Amino acid sequence: MADLGGSAYREAGVDIDAQEEALARVKKLVTGTFTPGVLSDVGSFGGLFRPELAGLEDPVLVASADGVGTKLMVARMAGDYSTVGRDLVNHCVNDILVQGARPLFFMDYVAVGKMVPEVVAQIIGGCALACQQNDLALLGGETAEMPGLYKVGDFDLAGFIVGSVSKEKLLDGSRVRPGQVLVALPSSGLHTNGYSLARKIVFEVLGLELDARPAELEGASVGEALLAVHRSYLEPLRGLLGRGHIAAMAHITGGGLLDNVPRVLGEHDAVIERSSWTVPPLFRWLCDAGRVDADEAYQAFNMGVGMVLFVDPKQVVGVLQHLRAAGETPFPIGCVEAGTGSVRWA
Amino acid sequence: MADLGGSAYREAGVDIDAQEEALARVKKLVTGTFTPGVLSDVGSFGGLFRPELAGLEDPVLVASADGVGTKLMVARMAGDYSTVGRDLVNHCVNDILVQGARPLFFMDYVAVGKMVPEVVAQIIGGCALACQQNDLALLGGETAEMPGLYKVGDFDLAGFIVGSVSKEKLLDGSRVRPGQVLVALPSSGLHTNGYSLARKIVFEVLGLELDARPAELEGASVGEALLAVHRSYLEPLRGLLGRGHIAAMAHITGGGLLDNVPRVLGEHDAVIERSSWTVPPLFRWLCDAGRVDADEAYQAFNMGVGMVLFVDPKQVVGVLQHLRAAGETPFPIGCVEAGTGSVRWA
Repeated sequence: MADLGGSAYREAGVDIDAQEEALARVKKLVTGTFTPGVLSDVGSFGGLFRPELAGLEDPVLVASADGVGTKLMVARMAGDYSTVGRDLVNHCVNDILVQGARPLFFMDYVAVGKMVPEVVAQIIGGCALACQQNDLALLGGETAEMPGLYKVGDFDLAGFIVGSVSKEKLLDGSRVRPGQVLVALPSSGLHTNGYSLARKIVFEVLGLELDARPAELEGASVGEALLAVHRSYLEPLRGLLGRGHIAAMAHITGGGLLDNVPRVLGEHDAVIERSSWTVPPLFRWLCDAGRVDADEAYQAFNMGVGMVLFVDPKQVVGVLQHLRAAGETPFPIGCVEAGTGSVRWA
Repeated sequence: MADLGGSAYREAGVDIDAQEEALARVKKLVTGTFTPGVLSDVGSFGGLFRPELAGLEDPVLVASADGVGTKLMVARMAGDYSTVGRDLVNHCVNDILVQGARPLFFMDYVAVGKMVPEVVAQIIGGCALACQQNDLALLGGETAEMPGLYKVGDFDLAGFIVGSVSKEKLLDGSRVRPGQVLVALPSSGLHTNGYSLARKIVFEVLGLELDARPAELEGASVGEALLAVHRSYLEPLRGLLGRGHIAAMAHITGGGLLDNVPRVLGEHDAVIERSSWTVPPLFRWLCDAGRVDADEAYQAFNMGVGMVLFVDPKQVVGVLQHLRAAGETPFPIGCVEAGTGSVRWA
C-alpha cells in the first residue's frame, strides 16, 4: 500500500503552492481592472459589484457564458497563451453588446491538467488586459488543476459576463422592420469559430506548420492568421448605444451569418449580397484548400463579417459617418424583407 | 488532398445536429427554472434578467464561478451524469450565500469531446433540477463540442452564479468578533473537493471498483459515497438571512476548514475543537487507508463540515432552534478569539 502521508495532496497531482504563485502573479493584473463598482478583493467567496443603476430606468441584467473553442489548441501549439483570454472577453462583450448592454463585470474559468504559473498568468493576464480595454471588471474566477481529467499541457478556458441596459433600450429583435439596412463591421480573423474545420484544413489537408507563410496569407504566418484576436465592437458602438440609431445587432459567432442573423429576425428575412464585400484572404484560402462550399463556409466561418447592425434607411448615413469617425470600416451588405426568419442570398 | 466539401464540418468532428438534439431535450428542463425575472428565451445571445431590486436598498450583485473538479471523473466512471450539475449549482449557491446573497440566476459551461445528447441532457438536467430546488433561473449557458481538446467521453463543467443583497446586509467578515460561536452544518459527503486525493486512495491505493461496499462505508457503495450530491444550504438558512442573526459564514470548499474559515476572520482566530463532532465514516476511511495526517486531511477534505456560521453568543440558542426546526442538525465546533487570522485547534 502506498503511503500518501505528508505530501499526499501534491503526490496526487495537485500543487497548491504553484496555484498560489500563479494567483499572486495575476492578482495585480486583475485588481487593475477594478472599476468603481467593485467592492470585493481578490479571493473572497464571491465577487461583489455595486451596479450604477441610478441612471438606468428599469434595469435589466444581460448575461452570457462562452468558451474559446479549439482555438485553444492553436494557442497551445504556438506556446502563446496571451491572446485567448482577450478572445474570450471580447467575444463575451460582443454577445451582450448586441442586446444593447454595456458590460459590468466578467469572470473566468481556467482548467488545467498541470498548474504552470507562467501559462495561467498569461491566460488570465489576457483576460485582464481585455477587461481593461473594454472598461469592465474582472470580478473573479476559478482556476482548477485537474490531473487526469486534463493531460499535462491541456487546458480549457470559459468566461461569463454580466452587463446592464434599461429595459426600454434593450435590443431584442422586436424593432426589426422590412427596409432596414444591414451594416457589417469587419472581423479581425476567424474570431473564435470554425477552428475545428480550419485546423483540419491547415494542419491535416495542407500539412502546414504554424510558421509557414503561404502566399495566400499575404505575408502573415499561419500562426499569426489563426491566432488573430477576436475583436471587441464596444468602442466604435459605444456612442451609438441607447440612442435609437440601431434597431438590432447580431454578433457573428458559431454558425456564421446563416445562424446568427436569424436570431434577431423574427418573421423577417435578411437578404444579403455576398458580392458586397471582399472576403478576406484567410477565408478564401481555407475554403479553396478545404473545398468548402459556400453554404457551409458561411455557416462555419464569419467570412469577414464580425457584427451586423440593423439600421433604418434614414439613419444609415449618420451611422456610417459615426462609425468611420470612430475608425471603423463599415459596409452595407443587404437589407431586411418580409419573410420567414431566414437569411437569403441576393 | 482530402475533400472536405459537403459534410466537412461534421467530418472535422463537430456534429451540429447532435448539438441541436441535445439542446431540444434540455430546453424544457431549462425553461422550467425560469423565475419571473427572466425576460429572455433559450437561444438568445445573452440571457436577460430583470432583478427585483425595488425591495433592496443599495443593491450589490454577488457573483461566483466554479467547477466540479475531478468528481467529474467519478461520474464518468459510473456512467451517471445526473448529479454533477446539482453539485455545481449547489456549490455556487453556497458560495454567494455566505455573503448573505440570495441567488438570481445561473449559467453553465459544458465542454465535451464528442456530443452525446443523452449525456449533455443529464448534465444540464442536473443543473436545471438544482436551479429549481434553489429557486433560481438557469438563464443560459454554453455547450461546446471540442474534438481533439477533449477525448471522446471526456467532459468538463463549470458554472457561474449571480445573486443580490442589500449592501447593509452584506456578510463580508467585518462583523466577526471575539466570543462568537462557530456553528457547523453537516456536509453530505466530499462535496466537490478532495477528489484527486480521494480517487488516488480509493482506486490506486485500495484498488477498489465503484460497486465495492467496504465495511467502513456502512452499507454504501464506493460510487454512492463518492457521488453523494454537494448539498445546498440555502433552504435552512433562508429564514436567517438579513436578520442580523449570523455575523459571517464560510463555505468549506477546496482547502477545507483550514483555508476557508480564515477568509472571513480578519485579524481574529477561529479556535476549533475537532472532538466536538464525529467525522463521518467516509472521511475516516479515506484518511486511514491513505495514511493522511490530520493537518492535511482538514485541508483536503471538509471532514463532515460543509458550512460554518459565526453567531453572537446571545443568538446561539435561537439560531440552533431555527436550524433544527428547518430539519438541520447544527453543531457548535468552536469560537472566535483575538488572533492573527488563523484556524487553531483547541
